[in-house]
Amino acid sequence: MRIDGRTAEQLRNISITTNFTKHPEGSVLITVGDTKVICNASVEDRVPPFMRGQGKGWITAEYAMLPRATEQRNIRESSKGKVAGRTMEIQRLIGRALRAVIDLDLIGERTIWVDCDVIQADGGTRTASITGAFVAVSLACIKLLDEEKINEMPIKQFLAATSVGISEDGEAILDLCYEEDSTAAVDMNIVMTDQNEFVELQGTGEEATFSPTQLNELIQLAQKGCNDLFEYQKQAIGEKAELIGQAKGE
Amino acid sequence: MRIDGRTAEQLRNISITTNFTKHPEGSVLITVGDTKVICNASVEDRVPPFMRGQGKGWITAEYAMLPRATEQRNIRESSKGKVAGRTMEIQRLIGRALRAVIDLDLIGERTIWVDCDVIQADGGTRTASITGAFVAVSLACIKLLDEEKINEMPIKQFLAATSVGISEDGEAILDLCYEEDSTAAVDMNIVMTDQNEFVELQGTGEEATFSPTQLNELIQLAQKGCNDLFEYQKQAIGEKAELIGQAKGE
Amino acid sequence: MRIDGRTAEQLRNISITTNFTKHPEGSVLITVGDTKVICNASVEDRVPPFMRGQGKGWITAEYAMLPRATEQRNIRESSKGKVAGRTMEIQRLIGRALRAVIDLDLIGERTIWVDCDVIQADGGTRTASITGAFVAVSLACIKLLDEEKINEMPIKQFLAATSVGISEDGEAILDLCYEEDSTAAVDMNIVMTDQNEFVELQGTGEEATFSPTQLNELIQLAQKGCNDLFEYQKQAIGEKAELIGQAKGE
Amino acid sequence: MRIDGRTAEQLRNISITTNFTKHPEGSVLITVGDTKVICNASVEDRVPPFMRGQGKGWITAEYAMLPRATEQRNIRESSKGKVAGRTMEIQRLIGRALRAVIDLDLIGERTIWVDCDVIQADGGTRTASITGAFVAVSLACIKLLDEEKINEMPIKQFLAATSVGISEDGEAILDLCYEEDSTAAVDMNIVMTDQNEFVELQGTGEEATFSPTQLNELIQLAQKGCNDLFEYQKQAIGEKAELIGQAKGE
Amino acid sequence: MRIDGRTAEQLRNISITTNFTKHPEGSVLITVGDTKVICNASVEDRVPPFMRGQGKGWITAEYAMLPRATEQRNIRESSKGKVAGRTMEIQRLIGRALRAVIDLDLIGERTIWVDCDVIQADGGTRTASITGAFVAVSLACIKLLDEEKINEMPIKQFLAATSVGISEDGEAILDLCYEEDSTAAVDMNIVMTDQNEFVELQGTGEEATFSPTQLNELIQLAQKGCNDLFEYQKQAIGEKAELIGQAKGE
Amino acid sequence: MRIDGRTAEQLRNISITTNFTKHPEGSVLITVGDTKVICNASVEDRVPPFMRGQGKGWITAEYAMLPRATEQRNIRESSKGKVAGRTMEIQRLIGRALRAVIDLDLIGERTIWVDCDVIQADGGTRTASITGAFVAVSLACIKLLDEEKINEMPIKQFLAATSVGISEDGEAILDLCYEEDSTAAVDMNIVMTDQNEFVELQGTGEEATFSPTQLNELIQLAQKGCNDLFEYQKQAIGEKAELIGQAKGE
Repeated sequence: MRIDGRTAEQLRNISITTNFTKHPEGSVLITVGDTKVICNASVEDRVPPFMRGQGKGWITAEYAMLPRATEQRNIRESSKGKVAGRTMEIQRLIGRALRAVIDLDLIGERTIWVDCDVIQADGGTRTASITGAFVAVSLACIKLLDEEKINEMPIKQFLAATSVGISEDGEAILDLCYEEDSTAAVDMNIVMTDQNEFVELQGTGEEATFSPTQLNELIQLAQKGCNDLFEYQKQAIGEKAELIGQAKGE
Repeated sequence: MRIDGRTAEQLRNISITTNFTKHPEGSVLITVGDTKVICNASVEDRVPPFMRGQGKGWITAEYAMLPRATEQRNIRESSKGKVAGRTMEIQRLIGRALRAVIDLDLIGERTIWVDCDVIQADGGTRTASITGAFVAVSLACIKLLDEEKINEMPIKQFLAATSVGISEDGEAILDLCYEEDSTAAVDMNIVMTDQNEFVELQGTGEEATFSPTQLNELIQLAQKGCNDLFEYQKQAIGEKAELIGQAKGE
Repeated sequence: MRIDGRTAEQLRNISITTNFTKHPEGSVLITVGDTKVICNASVEDRVPPFMRGQGKGWITAEYAMLPRATEQRNIRESSKGKVAGRTMEIQRLIGRALRAVIDLDLIGERTIWVDCDVIQADGGTRTASITGAFVAVSLACIKLLDEEKINEMPIKQFLAATSVGISEDGEAILDLCYEEDSTAAVDMNIVMTDQNEFVELQGTGEEATFSPTQLNELIQLAQKGCNDLFEYQKQAIGEKAELIGQAKGE
Repeated sequence: MRIDGRTAEQLRNISITTNFTKHPEGSVLITVGDTKVICNASVEDRVPPFMRGQGKGWITAEYAMLPRATEQRNIRESSKGKVAGRTMEIQRLIGRALRAVIDLDLIGERTIWVDCDVIQADGGTRTASITGAFVAVSLACIKLLDEEKINEMPIKQFLAATSVGISEDGEAILDLCYEEDSTAAVDMNIVMTDQNEFVELQGTGEEATFSPTQLNELIQLAQKGCNDLFEYQKQAIGEKAELIGQAKGE
Repeated sequence: MRIDGRTAEQLRNISITTNFTKHPEGSVLITVGDTKVICNASVEDRVPPFMRGQGKGWITAEYAMLPRATEQRNIRESSKGKVAGRTMEIQRLIGRALRAVIDLDLIGERTIWVDCDVIQADGGTRTASITGAFVAVSLACIKLLDEEKINEMPIKQFLAATSVGISEDGEAILDLCYEEDSTAAVDMNIVMTDQNEFVELQGTGEEATFSPTQLNELIQLAQKGCNDLFEYQKQAIGEKAELIGQAKGE
Repeated sequence: MRIDGRTAEQLRNISITTNFTKHPEGSVLITVGDTKVICNASVEDRVPPFMRGQGKGWITAEYAMLPRATEQRNIRESSKGKVAGRTMEIQRLIGRALRAVIDLDLIGERTIWVDCDVIQADGGTRTASITGAFVAVSLACIKLLDEEKINEMPIKQFLAATSVGISEDGEAILDLCYEEDSTAAVDMNIVMTDQNEFVELQGTGEEATFSPTQLNELIQLAQKGCNDLFEYQKQAIGEKAELIGQAKGE
């Protein structure tokens, strides 16, 4: 029995609110337990310099926390004048994960900017960001299709992410909240597709190690968690969710 | 008749949601028409170096927009590595306004950090920030009182802010939305107390000027607007709102 | 009787030296009491990217203090690697004020850079900067006319600025020196034209408030002060001052 | 048969030169094929502020490349004024990996700074850095022991890292050179101990995904590679290598 | 005959105005031909961290130009967010030169900040800065003596600087103006004391070289120039100039 | 007899290893006693904006130290986010010196980037950098000639640099090691050509001065040292060294 009453293989409560703000092409508020992230997808009609003239698109992500998203207030990165290493790691991860399931050729010379802004944090903000960002990008792509700016749905598979870990008493657990995360011996973030394939897998023992057997257990938990998340995503996206994976292309 | 159907002296729809996120001592979501700002007040048990040892407190504010709070996505200030002049102006204004109605001696050697994060912008974000921040700070002070960390309510008067302006066809109007703001000849932000006193008054003609008569008209409109806002604030704060203005001190 | 022997409605001694340094198109040293500011106007034959191709010009201002312009030495902003919020506020104000009285269409695709460098500070540096900058820009425009680079004087009205305030014993006073400013309850900067119109009005009560009646008093003092300043400006500019306000344009 | 004639499960040529420069407490040049990294361990007799007074030590790492370590010259991060996201990711990884096998209580209130400077790059610079840094830190700890500044060898296990990947034609390969890396479908970095435990595992499909079966294959290759690397490390460290893993502590 | 009518060994017109601004402990405006530099010396009652507790003082210098001190306007270093290499070179030179003739033990744990701000530039700004800064520091030391904060004049010798060069037609010339400087084959700055000793000597051939014979010629010219400058300094400082070189100490 | 057994006019042991790393067009490791610097020359097929369209090339240099090149570890400039004044001075010196002996017209619209990275420091890093950089640039030019990208050897003379100084007991000495340098009364860096001409001469007395007689002694020592260095350079470059100085051009 876990600190918040869940079983080892149970996700926290999930909700995904679409059209959360009015300006972005795709706007989502995802809540995973007490973690709340606004995921906005913005479409820009050009690509960064290193991609120009190739007829294909780009997806990039940024991640931030409100100063008081956490128990203790953090100094804003804009005030410090630089982006922390942790932030960079997370935003690189989000962008890379999304690019793995999107056919960049099909979005034309456009950039999709994904902004994940954590308004309340209770562990798992990077995996919630990926899961929510996937929905926001899907909505933005549906909008591009509806406006006939693109011809085919560029999204090849569903994509979700969750965290798994080995608790301090050695149990493998799914979707760690902050208190579990801060005492865990091993922490792993896994990004998967609905074809049961991995996109990204990052396991870390801070002052600890883990065995091949434990690795297997963690992976199975994560597979279960992601399968649940795909259902929430489908409901949030609505009937056009069935377009995902239909691209003939690449 | 204005672009959104309001009369010249009508505020947009106002709502103030308290306890919007769980960590801050005071947390508010204020919406003024389509402008939405999260205002969080965080209490820290120390003051900045220049104030140490005086037995009194400090209040400071920070302001930011999510990148896609606006019609066009803006580059994050953390990515640019510096805070824009406009941002600095606004956060200095918010802090100064709040300090005018709070007895810093009564909060002890504490800093109240006020974070105003605009999640959706449609004009008037700085005045909505002040109006919402006042509520967030009030809630934080009530919490300090409830926990008996302070003995007296340090807030001396209610404080609200609104914008007024001269439209392109010469009419004085209250609470400009973005479209009105971007075509106005004159734009003025006024911060007032419920004693009908001014705290801050900033009127600007970008490539235009205004007469003493127009100034008077604008001021009267703003007085009306602020009076309406004080009512919304009282409702949001609830019954302990009556403690405001009760301090014997200073 | 004020600290330096002036009456409530008396400006400090004013002098405006033209052609103070040799390189700028317009160069002025303005002294207001012990406040001394070098105001240089530089004409550049291009506009910033956001204005290109519109056939009109741009005016922008920068403001700085020598490190020992003040009683205590300040660290240079170049050493700190960033421009302070106060500096940004002031330079945005100066630029905005000048643009209100200059017909940007008449200066063609040129930028006028205004540099206000305070070499000695005793209160009122921002208003002295505006008053001096107006003269520097006028001289630069006269030079453009003399060289037949432009055809009409683009300056529509005279522009000057002064500070007014409520002293600690409640009196409304004009043109505060540093000592008065640092003890004043209310501080207001007003930028006006010689048509008796406002361009900018910024009143602030740091830990204080002011009433509509006091506001009126302050405004009348400022009008008096600006009227005096227009005379000093006319003398400094010389006979070509009469070209100001002659534009048929816009 | 691979581009450089290796079999799928063969490491490149490895050499580890100790005492490469004279000042550091531990100094190593590691070469892995054409990748060459200077790994220096510096002992400082204090810890960062967040660790003071706990009687334990800290290990942190920094990573950089000479501008022309690569085929194309890169701009220095000092010239750009900021550290790239990739650099931060790598140096956080190196530090975290080392901390997993070192008993920080046994090094006292000291910081071990690990500097990994790539002088020639041909793929696998981060894993070469970890493998080399482990030797440099071991030498520094032996020096602390020899000088009787510490009483017990604080290193609990051997630690090495290698890369594995899925080549463009679907084969699992060990220790990718730059050309292999830039065309691989999947790229994974694995950090292991000589107890056959994982410390860190980062697998990424940039615009690709991988299956659980492929993951297993990659892990087995990495285990083989790390086992070979432990032998090179033991030879480089010399007879005192046997102290590693002898700590009674924690 | 030179471009401005001088002989090869003639300085430009020199003037040194003392007490140029009111706040600094020593304030000087030096003009060397059309080059004008404000040199302010500020005394601070503490030393930088690396010098604390040694009972001796420190002297450091900063150098800047107003944006329009030159023919073309330069971007402010504060706007660029960093200090240029040229600026750093110059301010390090000024500080080093002054420290060579001042007995730091005699000024106690104080820092003398020297600010050299060029308001008009026509070549030789760094040497004018040194010559003027010496006077400003002398005045500040005399003030410390007069106020009995120190007991002995800490200045050991007079110090002045000038430039010499080889013109494009091969002639050795003294005190180059901007136009001469920009076409010179060789440019040398020499800092000397009135004991005919060198403090600093920096000779540079940008895309050119110079012979030992030419070096000798240049040195003799510089000696002559500095001897003239010592006279101007003595007059500016006044009768207390005779205290310089009287310290018994060190 | 000096601290390391040398006579006053003796260089330390010199070695110059060519082709030290594989990517750069010219790559050299120079060791001067215990000072070791990697000097890489990279050819880029374009020039900086200010030189475009003139048909001539550019040479620029960057200099850095590994954090633990010195006895005490230094913080990386990339971590500090800015380049130190000392670094800028040195890299400007290296670039200027090289440009004095290279005919920029003969290298076409190309930039040669010279990177001097000190991996071990024991005094004289800037002069070792110049001496080594000259060899690296020579190798890069020979490569351009061999590949027929240029037609003539653009290097006009040999160039080397050394330090000389006055020791604390008043003796003039050549090629100071760190310990000598840190106690020397006077320190001078001299850059010369094999035509016995000066390119750069920088003599400094930190808290000391020197006489014309001492200056002469130092110059003669430096001439001797540079003559020895030219021989090492010729051997390192090999038989194509004879092309240097053969250009008919300019």
